[in-house]
Amino acid sequence: MPDSTTLAELTAIALKFRAERDWQQFHNPKDVALSMSLEVAELIEIMQWRNGGELQKHLMAERDHVGQELSDILGWVLLLAHDLQIDLPAAFVAKMKQNAEKYPVEKAKGIAKKYTEL
Amino acid sequence: MPDSTTLAELTAIALKFRAERDWQQFHNPKDVALSMSLEVAELIEIMQWRNGGELQKHLMAERDHVGQELSDILGWVLLLAHDLQIDLPAAFVAKMKQNAEKYPVEKAKGIAKKYTEL
Amino acid sequence: MPDSTTLAELTAIALKFRAERDWQQFHNPKDVALSMSLEVAELIEIMQWRNGGELQKHLMAERDHVGQELSDILGWVLLLAHDLQIDLPAAFVAKMKQNAEKYPVEKAKGIAKKYTEL
Amino acid sequence: MPDSTTLAELTAIALKFRAERDWQQFHNPKDVALSMSLEVAELIEIMQWRNGGELQKHLMAERDHVGQELSDILGWVLLLAHDLQIDLPAAFVAKMKQNAEKYPVEKAKGIAKKYTEL
Repeated sequence: MPDSTTLAELTAIALKFRAERDWQQFHNPKDVALSMSLEVAELIEIMQWRNGGELQKHLMAERDHVGQELSDILGWVLLLAHDLQIDLPAAFVAKMKQNAEKYPVEKAKGIAKKYTEL
Repeated sequence: MPDSTTLAELTAIALKFRAERDWQQFHNPKDVALSMSLEVAELIEIMQWRNGGELQKHLMAERDHVGQELSDILGWVLLLAHDLQIDLPAAFVAKMKQNAEKYPVEKAKGIAKKYTEL
Repeated sequence: MPDSTTLAELTAIALKFRAERDWQQFHNPKDVALSMSLEVAELIEIMQWRNGGELQKHLMAERDHVGQELSDILGWVLLLAHDLQIDLPAAFVAKMKQNAEKYPVEKAKGIAKKYTEL
Repeated sequence: MPDSTTLAELTAIALKFRAERDWQQFHNPKDVALSMSLEVAELIEIMQWRNGGELQKHLMAERDHVGQELSDILGWVLLLAHDLQIDLPAAFVAKMKQNAEKYPVEKAKGIAKKYTEL
């Protein structure tokens, strides 16, 4: 897929997959969010007990596996946004603006603190 | 943002935000994955103790909030894919193909079971 | 084990298991907390896509499995408390008192809301 | 509380707290497991962006806070075990035996790998 893949195209793929299996009936928002958290757990499991250079090396070796888990997470994000009629690109841009206000460059530069502690 | 927003565009926004704050130094993969899990928790918290019609109604009322959490999750997905040089659209399409093989329509239609139990 | 099993006894079992395998070296707090979250994910996975009476029935059938996951979670809780020299029974009693103040009976009775919304 | 506090005593405290507030009606197993995962997220948040010596120091300074989150997690573990009529001390001892078989000392000593990879 080219770099120009849109969120709408990926959402369409996920929706087609779901429709073919008639799975929307199971996709209440809570189970969808739960399923998302299970995929994040699978991503984290790849990193369990590894740190620093060893972790980095392991992740590069497991890049396909990591890509699979990130795809599963992304799939649930796209489906939940679709089901709740959320315009995800618009929400994303709005949230980044909000983050920029919470973390102004002059205060947050080089500092890993929550905005409430800046 | 139009429906034609690409993953590359959203990734560029997240990278610019990070570069301006010089935050890449903190973004080791484990803390990034952890942060993703914290955002999923914030999404789930919106649904805590609510179910059925009440949950659906609450989520529609909280749609902006849900969109913010989904955006935060998506942001971490995009950054981690970028940092590990993963072509996320390609990975997504490949994973959906793999899922389609694990869950063939004739076996999985209308059934919410893990592929190992089908 | 009788009902009179103490937290100290269970902690001792977990510590002995760890010492025999020389695993304390891997148990930095972040990976321990991560591992705890992975066990919670395994617990949640038992409940995925099931709700209401079907979920209840499934959990009773899977009681041994649920007990295993709860035990794994408990094990990490006990080890982390031990490693950080936290007196968990004392902390528990103190936290329940704090919760009682945050959720006074006359305000919270029969209401599933966060204390900030009561 | 002395070191001799039993799981049964802590469970009794949690049950009394719940009964006084008439909250059992909300405690379906899925929302209980979800709530447990939210408390684990709060624990993990204390560790976000910190590592090594800095993390260790921060956790010692935040020991009360950590104890509160561990207590909340423990509370949900005890309540779920109670609600599903699971004898948690017995389950714990059984699971540790199972773990000992999955990870025999001679194979697992000093090695942080999943049993399937040993």
